Amino acid sequence: MKPPVEFYFDFSSPYGYLASEKIEALAAMHGRSVDWHPILLGVVFKQTGAVPLTTVPLKGEYSRRDMARSARFHGIGFRMPSTFPIATQAPARIVLWAAGRDSGLAAKTVHSLYRAFFVDDIDISNADAAAAVAASCGADAEAARAAVDDPAIKDALKRENEHAIAKGVFGSPFFIVDGEPFWGLDHLDQVDRWLATGGW
Amino acid sequence: MKPPVEFYFDFSSPYGYLASEKIEALAAMHGRSVDWHPILLGVVFKQTGAVPLTTVPLKGEYSRRDMARSARFHGIGFRMPSTFPIATQAPARIVLWAAGRDSGLAAKTVHSLYRAFFVDDIDISNADAAAAVAASCGADAEAARAAVDDPAIKDALKRENEHAIAKGVFGSPFFIVDGEPFWGLDHLDQVDRWLATGGW
Repeated sequence: MKPPVEFYFDFSSPYGYLASEKIEALAAMHGRSVDWHPILLGVVFKQTGAVPLTTVPLKGEYSRRDMARSARFHGIGFRMPSTFPIATQAPARIVLWAAGRDSGLAAKTVHSLYRAFFVDDIDISNADAAAAVAASCGADAEAARAAVDDPAIKDALKRENEHAIAKGVFGSPFFIVDGEPFWGLDHLDQVDRWLATGGW
Repeated sequence: MKPPVEFYFDFSSPYGYLASEKIEALAAMHGRSVDWHPILLGVVFKQTGAVPLTTVPLKGEYSRRDMARSARFHGIGFRMPSTFPIATQAPARIVLWAAGRDSGLAAKTVHSLYRAFFVDDIDISNADAAAAVAASCGADAEAARAAVDDPAIKDALKRENEHAIAKGVFGSPFFIVDGEPFWGLDHLDQVDRWLATGGW
């Protein structure tokens, strides 16, 4: 089995959500699975001096238009959440907790949490709401909720952020294929060709 | 004749160069021409607080890798210039001067100036060097060189920057198709579909 595609994302990232809906099928076409790496862009942005996209003059207005347009371009359901951006510690920790149990559960939980936020306008920064989404995927509801406050899981998320920064990750979505880094939803075509050819 | 595709670019922008090599053929496929709008990203970045991409931690290293990789992906010759980034008043003014005479000359000069910088490593921030490139396209060498210091042409470039900002342009390359804005080399696929369908 070839190594999985590493997929780094923040749950508050619209382009991360859109890419999460495409990456598994793309990876599978090339006999790959996906390793899901929830990170906190707020931590990563301290390295780069970046600020949330939608808050930047000119770029912010454009990005809101482009997010909705890109969703329609790719045929993916999308609604800009009424609260945005959000803190994403709760959903990220629940996914790391789920990944420690069952990678299938983790993947399912990623999709359900992202869709809860970007389709159903559920504020997944709320730990109870995020745990309820995980429970709808088959997770134990109380255990998922407890994971949000578990020091070991908190540490695991810190390590994810540190590892991501060490690998050069600075945005969401961010893909690493056999060591090669790709940033952004719009780089799926390059990810596809890299998986097919091993580079160019 | 349908309206031209508006193409905004800075001569120091690698992704602007790569897009300049693709946009004419793409527009022509849909019966469109291209209006070339040289702008100064330094002026535009004052609106958004942006800084040159290659100077940002993590993102800078990635962008240098991605620029060369994206050039190979699209089959376009590219070499990172030894002096980068550069001030681009001289080439931008020469193009505006040429556009006032002959739109064919302007387009030819855009391509030759971009290739001089990103293929042949000629420092086109130098007014003499930029004028020599224009002369190789058929322009009058002395007149092209004089345009760089011509107050009327300086004003024309100021107006280009102001118009671009008023239209929401914040980066390079930036395309406007029948009023719809698209940012970035990676949005050529959306530009293509918008030209084909008129929107989605």
